[in-house]
Amino acid sequence: MRKYVAEFMGTFMLVFLGTGAVVIAKGDALTIGLAFGLAITVSAYAFGGISGGQFNPTVTTAMLINHRIKSLDAIYYIVAQILGAVVASFFVRTFVSGLKLSATQLGQTDFPKISTGLAFIVETLITFLFITIILNVTSKEHGNGDFAGIVIGITLSFLIIFALNLTGGSLNPARSIGPALFAGGSAFAHLWLYILAPEVGAILAAFFSKYLLGSEY
Amino acid sequence: MRKYVAEFMGTFMLVFLGTGAVVIAKGDALTIGLAFGLAITVSAYAFGGISGGQFNPTVTTAMLINHRIKSLDAIYYIVAQILGAVVASFFVRTFVSGLKLSATQLGQTDFPKISTGLAFIVETLITFLFITIILNVTSKEHGNGDFAGIVIGITLSFLIIFALNLTGGSLNPARSIGPALFAGGSAFAHLWLYILAPEVGAILAAFFSKYLLGSEY
Amino acid sequence: MRKYVAEFMGTFMLVFLGTGAVVIAKGDALTIGLAFGLAITVSAYAFGGISGGQFNPTVTTAMLINHRIKSLDAIYYIVAQILGAVVASFFVRTFVSGLKLSATQLGQTDFPKISTGLAFIVETLITFLFITIILNVTSKEHGNGDFAGIVIGITLSFLIIFALNLTGGSLNPARSIGPALFAGGSAFAHLWLYILAPEVGAILAAFFSKYLLGSEY
Amino acid sequence: MRKYVAEFMGTFMLVFLGTGAVVIAKGDALTIGLAFGLAITVSAYAFGGISGGQFNPTVTTAMLINHRIKSLDAIYYIVAQILGAVVASFFVRTFVSGLKLSATQLGQTDFPKISTGLAFIVETLITFLFITIILNVTSKEHGNGDFAGIVIGITLSFLIIFALNLTGGSLNPARSIGPALFAGGSAFAHLWLYILAPEVGAILAAFFSKYLLGSEY
Repeated sequence: MRKYVAEFMGTFMLVFLGTGAVVIAKGDALTIGLAFGLAITVSAYAFGGISGGQFNPTVTTAMLINHRIKSLDAIYYIVAQILGAVVASFFVRTFVSGLKLSATQLGQTDFPKISTGLAFIVETLITFLFITIILNVTSKEHGNGDFAGIVIGITLSFLIIFALNLTGGSLNPARSIGPALFAGGSAFAHLWLYILAPEVGAILAAFFSKYLLGSEY
Repeated sequence: MRKYVAEFMGTFMLVFLGTGAVVIAKGDALTIGLAFGLAITVSAYAFGGISGGQFNPTVTTAMLINHRIKSLDAIYYIVAQILGAVVASFFVRTFVSGLKLSATQLGQTDFPKISTGLAFIVETLITFLFITIILNVTSKEHGNGDFAGIVIGITLSFLIIFALNLTGGSLNPARSIGPALFAGGSAFAHLWLYILAPEVGAILAAFFSKYLLGSEY
Repeated sequence: MRKYVAEFMGTFMLVFLGTGAVVIAKGDALTIGLAFGLAITVSAYAFGGISGGQFNPTVTTAMLINHRIKSLDAIYYIVAQILGAVVASFFVRTFVSGLKLSATQLGQTDFPKISTGLAFIVETLITFLFITIILNVTSKEHGNGDFAGIVIGITLSFLIIFALNLTGGSLNPARSIGPALFAGGSAFAHLWLYILAPEVGAILAAFFSKYLLGSEY
Repeated sequence: MRKYVAEFMGTFMLVFLGTGAVVIAKGDALTIGLAFGLAITVSAYAFGGISGGQFNPTVTTAMLINHRIKSLDAIYYIVAQILGAVVASFFVRTFVSGLKLSATQLGQTDFPKISTGLAFIVETLITFLFITIILNVTSKEHGNGDFAGIVIGITLSFLIIFALNLTGGSLNPARSIGPALFAGGSAFAHLWLYILAPEVGAILAAFFSKYLLGSEY
């Protein structure tokens, strides 16, 4: 049970600090990117010892493909991650209301400037890069364990900064589900893309890393 | 005696660099958050070997609950922390006066935009998250000792960035007492909240971490 | 073969995140510098265990001079690096088009404000400093292996910030070739400088470091 | 001889990247502070293995008081540091001229907004804090060797951010001498303060740290 609570906490931190940096702090691209990314870094060092520190359904999918987690655990992990994101968005919504800000601006992900096809490519590509970095840096033979939490967080930060003007930079279905549940509208209607595209990217990364890391799996 | 001096120095660094970034450097949210958070990081690595590097009465409270510090030491630690914050605010006030800036703007914490109830929830919640991260990352079994100072500082940075527009992001009674003593007014009148709410958050985190870390305590 | 793929991936990350921060995120100097530099940091920790993490033809040149890589491998490395940069610029160009932005703004390097001679000196000098730091921090006797990836990335970040208003801060022929192939014009006409000047800086650094590191080579 | 070259290189990096971030990149407070501070971080990891990584006459003074360096070496170190700063300012001046910017704006330190007495207190106090952190974090018994370079750089960054609007945040006679030689005027006339005040702060820190670190010296 404790490992599911750890997954809840880490995903809560991601959505809380990340979307809070967008709508409450109204930070610039660097502040927003670092808030999301470093939330993963600190959660990985704090809670990773308990649950492995996945905090993202696509990470769990990739770990499942590479036999680093069991099927049943993977399901519980993903449920815990989505719950963490939803509770974080509930708190952000409460504070946004307290500030008399628009209750439909909750840091949800959407792609008002580009086509659906391009948005799908963006989320697939950046999640592919993200999961490839994760699988390599946590590799026993070629990786760099102690620094993995920092590397993964920084990678997420700058992939989000890259995609902020394209798709909002989700790379994580739970991160998109949380705010969209409360914001509704277009963000909710586009949720399918933020679930499907990152998962496709993660699956491609899992097989690519099997090749890149050789016989390790 | 030397460990109380170490606690004085670390809390001095926090208030000096943090409130200085607000009122002297007039930094943006990222600069302010990092100034507060990384002041804790550098003090933890420099002075943590002497005192354990708490620099915050709520951290001392949580450590007391989890039997990591003795009662009498806890009292001296908290006195040293408050003294460090007050002396730091004295210096900031001197420099602010030298710049002919308003002597009532000293980086004090307050909540002009939200209700008292919501402010209490904000400070309780962010301190709960902060202390939970601290207790987990410094845990002998599940933690990550070498990186603890960096993780704790980054966590504080982004929790402060989150709360800057809500409550100013204190998470630390000493940090609020220092500037409020010289600024007076509303910041002084609201000091009770910045003492009580973070302490409530810390106590909740201490018990939550007892559960999360299992039999470790 | 896998090590060439690793070199492709790292140089892809550099150009993708770096030029993306310029033209898609439209970040300030700090955001741009960190995007380029930290792309190298995360790629070094993720892919360095496979290929050594060079991601730059001038690094490969310096390693060749100091007998840390074989001639034939050096050629394949440089080809992989240039390919990674070109593919990254292809993706950036696709996304820039999707945003209806000018397809000739791809984060290419150029020097509209200064003379060709001064631009040559700038790129030679900053690459000399970059390669000197790399060779020293990765030195077996005097270096600091675990932190090398962070040190190299931060060094690149602030050398790019320094040179942004002068030459765009390339320090890497592959990084300049990628965007210039699609942007054409002056950036393409000036490619010779972004190939030659960094290579001169790297060669000078290789010999300087032989002196500074003493008998180590 | 090689260790004097290492001191030259590190101080060159500090003045080159730091004053370059001010006058060429025209960065904000965070960019400037990080450019100075992280220049020390990367130089410490790259060149610290050769010379100890002091890059600042006040650090050398404190190390002399605490018997960590011999008198004659201390003199050569300080000469090398000043030379590194002067050569860095020469390059910055060349590039500033190439950009047709004012050749008297070279990132020199001065205090146009506050009194001489207050400027002296600021430089003494921030150098005292800086050297105290350095001596503690590099202490064999209580320190944290591996992270020392990062801690020292971050400390310098935020002390400079603190003092930017007061004195420019020197903490280092060599850093002030370099630009002032070329800028002349008030910055040159005030050089005595930027030599004397940091040295007073360093001497106080050396004795304070003897107390704080107990019998270690």
